Amino acid sequence: MNLAAETDLKAPWLDAIKWNEDGLVPVITQDYLSGRVLTHAWLNKEALALAQQEGRAVYWSRSRAKLWRKGEESGFIQKLHATYLDCDGDTVCFMVEQIGGIACHTGRESCFYRKLEDEQWHNVDPVLKDPKAIYAK
Amino acid sequence: MNLAAETDLKAPWLDAIKWNEDGLVPVITQDYLSGRVLTHAWLNKEALALAQQEGRAVYWSRSRAKLWRKGEESGFIQKLHATYLDCDGDTVCFMVEQIGGIACHTGRESCFYRKLEDEQWHNVDPVLKDPKAIYAK
Repeated sequence: MNLAAETDLKAPWLDAIKWNEDGLVPVITQDYLSGRVLTHAWLNKEALALAQQEGRAVYWSRSRAKLWRKGEESGFIQKLHATYLDCDGDTVCFMVEQIGGIACHTGRESCFYRKLEDEQWHNVDPVLKDPKAIYAK
Repeated sequence: MNLAAETDLKAPWLDAIKWNEDGLVPVITQDYLSGRVLTHAWLNKEALALAQQEGRAVYWSRSRAKLWRKGEESGFIQKLHATYLDCDGDTVCFMVEQIGGIACHTGRESCFYRKLEDEQWHNVDPVLKDPKAIYAK
């Protein structure tokens, strides 16, 4: 976090968003070429301002209660191509270039790899890289 | 709501989902052909079970606190082609055929019609049909 981003937190485009009671909004992240939905995550003002400033997806991790620069451990960052807001002003959509072609911590292209068929969830996408290799120090 | 759907609420595939403290999960709805993200909404168990049963998008309206069969007023229903679950089991993705080509109550194809450019939100999609005509009784 730096001074520039702190200043930006008062910008009108950020105030146009209806942040929830926790100061967050959901964000859908989509591959800008294939249209594949990669992830569903959350933003606070700081994360969204930093994402614009740095040109990459930055989220708010609810479980870790901290900023999450996507790819900071795996290297699979998401270059930000465009940012959209919905009619209600309470959901954001990021169009990104997924570096490495892997968005999911399971080593798959997308987090949405389970498909409902015959009342069961089926893993329909291959693991492209072993997570142990992705997250090895 | 009917008996068949009530029975289905105890199905293992529904229990596999991590419903939040309000018994809801977010759902991303995407056009099954173009990949365009159309809406972001919410599901409870009943809505998701009914969507599968009826082959169309059914949501839980948080503002109205009731089931919302998408298109019940506008006629612009969403035919359900596939249902996906993410790695954490807390977000669903619907792949749909958007009847009428209009998902947004503003008369646009998608709810995500505002694009961020130069720190301003710009309406980048045309209104395809006047909402007054869509919702006229």
